[in-house]
Amino acid sequence: MTILEIHEYLQQLFDVVALVGNGDAVITAPAKIETAQKGEVSFVANEKYLKFLATTEASLLIVHNSVNVDEYSHKTSFLKVADPYSAFVFLLQKFSIPRTIAPKGIAATASIGQNVTIGEGVSIGEYVVIGDRCTIGRNCVIGAHTVLLHDVVLGDDSVFFPSVICYDGTTIGKRVIIHSGSVIGADGFGFAPQKDGSYVKIPQMGIVEIGDDVEIGANTTIDRATMGSTVIGNGVKIDNLVQLAHNCRIGDHTVIAAQAGISGSVTMGRQCVIGGQVGCAGHLELADRTQVAAQAGISKSFLQPGLVLRGYPAQPMRDQLKHEAMSRNLGSMKEKLDRLERELTALKTSSEG
Amino acid sequence: MTILEIHEYLQQLFDVVALVGNGDAVITAPAKIETAQKGEVSFVANEKYLKFLATTEASLLIVHNSVNVDEYSHKTSFLKVADPYSAFVFLLQKFSIPRTIAPKGIAATASIGQNVTIGEGVSIGEYVVIGDRCTIGRNCVIGAHTVLLHDVVLGDDSVFFPSVICYDGTTIGKRVIIHSGSVIGADGFGFAPQKDGSYVKIPQMGIVEIGDDVEIGANTTIDRATMGSTVIGNGVKIDNLVQLAHNCRIGDHTVIAAQAGISGSVTMGRQCVIGGQVGCAGHLELADRTQVAAQAGISKSFLQPGLVLRGYPAQPMRDQLKHEAMSRNLGSMKEKLDRLERELTALKTSSEG
Amino acid sequence: MTILEIHEYLQQLFDVVALVGNGDAVITAPAKIETAQKGEVSFVANEKYLKFLATTEASLLIVHNSVNVDEYSHKTSFLKVADPYSAFVFLLQKFSIPRTIAPKGIAATASIGQNVTIGEGVSIGEYVVIGDRCTIGRNCVIGAHTVLLHDVVLGDDSVFFPSVICYDGTTIGKRVIIHSGSVIGADGFGFAPQKDGSYVKIPQMGIVEIGDDVEIGANTTIDRATMGSTVIGNGVKIDNLVQLAHNCRIGDHTVIAAQAGISGSVTMGRQCVIGGQVGCAGHLELADRTQVAAQAGISKSFLQPGLVLRGYPAQPMRDQLKHEAMSRNLGSMKEKLDRLERELTALKTSSEG
Repeated sequence: MTILEIHEYLQQLFDVVALVGNGDAVITAPAKIETAQKGEVSFVANEKYLKFLATTEASLLIVHNSVNVDEYSHKTSFLKVADPYSAFVFLLQKFSIPRTIAPKGIAATASIGQNVTIGEGVSIGEYVVIGDRCTIGRNCVIGAHTVLLHDVVLGDDSVFFPSVICYDGTTIGKRVIIHSGSVIGADGFGFAPQKDGSYVKIPQMGIVEIGDDVEIGANTTIDRATMGSTVIGNGVKIDNLVQLAHNCRIGDHTVIAAQAGISGSVTMGRQCVIGGQVGCAGHLELADRTQVAAQAGISKSFLQPGLVLRGYPAQPMRDQLKHEAMSRNLGSMKEKLDRLERELTALKTSSEG
Repeated sequence: MTILEIHEYLQQLFDVVALVGNGDAVITAPAKIETAQKGEVSFVANEKYLKFLATTEASLLIVHNSVNVDEYSHKTSFLKVADPYSAFVFLLQKFSIPRTIAPKGIAATASIGQNVTIGEGVSIGEYVVIGDRCTIGRNCVIGAHTVLLHDVVLGDDSVFFPSVICYDGTTIGKRVIIHSGSVIGADGFGFAPQKDGSYVKIPQMGIVEIGDDVEIGANTTIDRATMGSTVIGNGVKIDNLVQLAHNCRIGDHTVIAAQAGISGSVTMGRQCVIGGQVGCAGHLELADRTQVAAQAGISKSFLQPGLVLRGYPAQPMRDQLKHEAMSRNLGSMKEKLDRLERELTALKTSSEG
Repeated sequence: MTILEIHEYLQQLFDVVALVGNGDAVITAPAKIETAQKGEVSFVANEKYLKFLATTEASLLIVHNSVNVDEYSHKTSFLKVADPYSAFVFLLQKFSIPRTIAPKGIAATASIGQNVTIGEGVSIGEYVVIGDRCTIGRNCVIGAHTVLLHDVVLGDDSVFFPSVICYDGTTIGKRVIIHSGSVIGADGFGFAPQKDGSYVKIPQMGIVEIGDDVEIGANTTIDRATMGSTVIGNGVKIDNLVQLAHNCRIGDHTVIAAQAGISGSVTMGRQCVIGGQVGCAGHLELADRTQVAAQAGISKSFLQPGLVLRGYPAQPMRDQLKHEAMSRNLGSMKEKLDRLERELTALKTSSEG
């Protein structure tokens, strides 16, 4: 792909794209700016990387409109755009090496149940097990060893990497990606305590509903509802090793980082951002666009949209940072207290004397 | 199932059951009270849901003996019991849709080792691998893709969902349920540090022993002992993504929520309740009925039964809440300190003056 | 194995080994000192276990050179060494029961792709799926149900337990052990936010590179790099349910305990020790030999080698313990403050009076 071809491709996607320098060179791969070589393309989206403009070996850099590159254009070509990061991401897609998750068609070793509907263009890998009455949308790719229990519905163009498990009744939207080892629809953790200290299992009769354009990382667990549905909205992105308990409702375009755990019946708004290892107690609500810092513990609802939360128990960032600063300052408070005590004692002595 | 039939069923299980209203209507499904429709049964176990009595469309509600329902019995029928929650749970079981984890019999694709004993009525799914000398109790159900290494023993009526892994020598009791992706009996994390900074693996020669009536969630890991056994008592309930390290001993009817991590050689008593994301350091002991709040970090033994622990490092709830309150109050302490300083300075000035 | 034979074996490995007592007895198994019986060998590496010398039934104990055992040598034999723990670990290896992870040879049900290279002495279990162009080193053992996507390279003498998933392009060194359910090389969690609140997936084009002598626990996830490689150094030991995000670099002989989560582009030095449930924010650096206490949250780089970190946000142990002590002492600070206020008021009253 020549620089001119890259220019043309990006112009189709973004408003303003200016090319500075030679457009004839062939670009063979994307690279990080620290390590980019001749024939490679990289980008600068953060000011602190501008220093690499003088030294990079990259043949093409994507930079912000405002960057003055004249000094370097004799040795490097530049594409100037409003959002260099996004432009580079779209370019990455052009260069991404085709990956085979499962060969075309249905593997001879796949076990397909009764009354299963399979759309056109589907790839089903070795040893996949699909239960009765499942529906697989068009162009889906199902990696080896994936197991769908009965009555699972999978929308068009969805991709399961090897060894995904979906329990019965799970419904999944279009263009969903689920990585290996994730378990969708296992029983919620519900037990009724008995007088003798033992527990009786509460049947988990609901399902999991996953919207369109969702991506779920590896070894994540999303439990089915006790009754009704656990709901993952459209465009939700979930990292690895995340736990979503029964009857959670996650709003559209919310992002949940690795190892976060959301307890039962939590309702989370749209476009929230949940940090890694965050914990969220059950039966509470977070408004749209709530952001939660890593490792925070949320113990109550926050109904005002757009709050940034941090700490344990989590509170709005400003309060929490003030609290943390004051807490770090305990040493000087103690010193002052001891000094006042000495001064007071001295004063008492002198006033008594 | 008519309301009269439900009445009769619950009377077999609970001491007192009074029916108020019409008993002829047919009930087709259970539902949450907020969404229940005509022909559905729901329940109220918590006072704050009593407000729904006036508006629910449910045909039948299970409520506490003490609730006065006369006002509503013209449109809804009621069953009054001492424990409406438990009654509803038992009713849920009646309505639960039969789920097929693995078809009856042994799948033709299952790989069964040598000298394996398989009880009557067992279902073994597609591509299951069972190692040499395993014993599978009567009526067990083993989902597709489960792998048992050699010398695993599985008690009667136990259920493995698809893709459970049991390492060699694991013994499992009766009526145990293990969800997909859990790994039982992997090597404990034990390495002997060497002078050159490297580590030598300590052979993990023990096993995992799991009692009767245990349920284990999805993607949980329970490591085998270095020597001897990691022991999970009867009736223990373990959620998803939990880590139990080598040589742990978990007492009967203890409950462990998602993403908790219990380090090596911890001994936990009976009927403990461990919150989500709790961490517990190694080689310590928790007495019977200890409760630990979510995200707490336990760094020492607590030998008094029935304590409620919270915080990092965890301490009894009362101390911890007092500590947290005082910590949240640092701002006013600081203000007071500054005020005293000003007053003292003024006093010194005036006494010197 | 007689005590004399054990003596001879350990003398080959360690500088000083003295035998006290009878050497003829046959030892059949290792055991913990609390439970060891006649015919068994145990060890004492910690002073607090010396009390068992008087009561143990073990036929052989491995103890430190400095321990005076004359009093007990009429009933127990002793081997005295400089490092009893390591000696016992090497002895454990002698007694470890052979475990079959996969039978010798390639199972008939294994699915092997095109242009796959398989070394001598390899064992490949039932239903294993190996993608095109993979290379499997000599004497590797690959447990049932493991899936390697295409272009995976596996060094000599490595062992995969059942149901490990490696995405395309992963390279793994020699003598590596990976436990069941771990997912190596899944896509990093990278999405470019769009103006409408949705996200565009950033292609994850890199790979995972794992060095020699690495052990990875069960259900752990190690993500591939966005570009370049996620790198796990030689001799690294990783526990269960650990998350290592894209582009992490973990130095040689570093140890990471269960449920720790390391965010993207973290560079960790050699011989670090990371506690359970530790979280580490992205794009930061930890120097060689950094130790991090369990549940700590690391929010910035620590470039001085050998620091011990603790708390949230993590800081050097000494500062953090001081902070925690002061924080626990808030009650008495408050009391003192209230007392000073009373005294000051009294003083003001008297000086005004």
